[in-house]
Amino acid sequence: MMEKELNKHFKHEHFPKVLKDAMLYSLEAGGKRLRPVLLAASYGAFQTGTDKILTSAVALEMIHTYSLIHDDLPAMDNDDYRRGKLTNHKAFNEAIAILAGDALLTYSFEIIANDPLLSSDEKVTILQMLSRASGPHGMVAGQIYDMEAEDKAISLEQLENIHALKTGELVGFAVKAGAFLGNASEEQLKHLEKFAYYLGILFQVQDDILDIEGDEEKLGKSVGSDIDQNKSTYPKLLGLNGAKKLKLEYANKAKESLKMAQANTDILMNLIDHFSQRDH
Amino acid sequence: MMEKELNKHFKHEHFPKVLKDAMLYSLEAGGKRLRPVLLAASYGAFQTGTDKILTSAVALEMIHTYSLIHDDLPAMDNDDYRRGKLTNHKAFNEAIAILAGDALLTYSFEIIANDPLLSSDEKVTILQMLSRASGPHGMVAGQIYDMEAEDKAISLEQLENIHALKTGELVGFAVKAGAFLGNASEEQLKHLEKFAYYLGILFQVQDDILDIEGDEEKLGKSVGSDIDQNKSTYPKLLGLNGAKKLKLEYANKAKESLKMAQANTDILMNLIDHFSQRDH
Repeated sequence: MMEKELNKHFKHEHFPKVLKDAMLYSLEAGGKRLRPVLLAASYGAFQTGTDKILTSAVALEMIHTYSLIHDDLPAMDNDDYRRGKLTNHKAFNEAIAILAGDALLTYSFEIIANDPLLSSDEKVTILQMLSRASGPHGMVAGQIYDMEAEDKAISLEQLENIHALKTGELVGFAVKAGAFLGNASEEQLKHLEKFAYYLGILFQVQDDILDIEGDEEKLGKSVGSDIDQNKSTYPKLLGLNGAKKLKLEYANKAKESLKMAQANTDILMNLIDHFSQRDH
Repeated sequence: MMEKELNKHFKHEHFPKVLKDAMLYSLEAGGKRLRPVLLAASYGAFQTGTDKILTSAVALEMIHTYSLIHDDLPAMDNDDYRRGKLTNHKAFNEAIAILAGDALLTYSFEIIANDPLLSSDEKVTILQMLSRASGPHGMVAGQIYDMEAEDKAISLEQLENIHALKTGELVGFAVKAGAFLGNASEEQLKHLEKFAYYLGILFQVQDDILDIEGDEEKLGKSVGSDIDQNKSTYPKLLGLNGAKKLKLEYANKAKESLKMAQANTDILMNLIDHFSQRDH
């Protein structure tokens, strides 16, 4: 579903060839599409069908992808591989990678502003939520704090704040956008926001655990890189067992909040376990 | 006016300190604010006051500034100075510069989506125009074609296409957004689009001329860099006199289109000469 939807936004567009190739290279690099799935599941808690959220889901995946392309750059994490494939700047070059990221970010706003299935009021709300979640109030702030924490001893609270911004904001957007477009009540939105918060952190805790216990082949990247880079992680601050305990605790809190929302949350409920037990 | 407006969008925002500093460093680097001025003048052709266009003008300047920060990066033009000041990645570092650019781009959409003086329909139209002008259909495409043209002999038509995208799209946005918010008619918008096209190219022709004849102190950068970098320019393709002739021709075409719009275009008319005769 997502692949077809993604391609729809590139088929008839006259982008420079190398730019289109670079954008699609990373979009099609076999990500897990967790954010679009989450957005669809959140909408599905209130409505049937998926038409109404497809463009927002694609835009969200574009923003996630741009952030990975820029994160991988030599001046940032300097990664050569992601998901078992060469990173964008290795497959193309640095200048193209910077521009492909810029283009994906900009295009994500363009496709929402032109979504034929949303009213102007809906577009504006989605654009407000997405820009806030991904910009200097959200994901980019997380990226800065993450860089500042390198080679430093930070507290659990600081670590959680980094992840709440760097990963949690887009996870939160997925859940809130789905619920908003599904006409959830204010009350329901409040509970889903809490659910999204715990889910986002839980996702990151599992990421840190996989960097210790994961299977390199399944992950498509080498494990142990956090330790090599002397990064602050949950296992480092809490021990491996402590991290696993925290993950369970957050999974339970997420489930609790989800129940309070009183909607058709079966799929979202399953996603908590899926996020918590994923092996890649 | 612009300085106060710009600062308004940073005063009470909780961005990470270094990110805010880096964003403001380049925003306040003493640019000519030509795009905001143009937007205001275009609005002024139809309405009095400027309140309604201030946020769009700030957003436009943010996008222009992000594009300069990313252009200056080592992987792109590798410039150490701009407007007589260190470029963003030299004053901070490469990672911060990449993120400051990303943040400015994203924040520009956020402030428009939250502009209290625009209706949802107006916000959506402005966001459609701005994202299209600055993304893979517009400015980023121009950047790619510009890179591809390096060290190559290109035709006058190709050169014009590069500038129409790289510079012209944002100039076009300034004019169209101002006229749209000023309630110009379809007919008037059509003439103003033509005006903006000639103005954008004219601006670039003068840029190329200044790289040969300009005063380094006034420009805040060294002249002759186009020749050093073996760049395709108007003077290179047409000779210096040919470039000056073309500039005059485009200035006349711009004036012609402006007259056809039949609005209070005195300031816009003056801007044609200002763009064409500027010394920095």
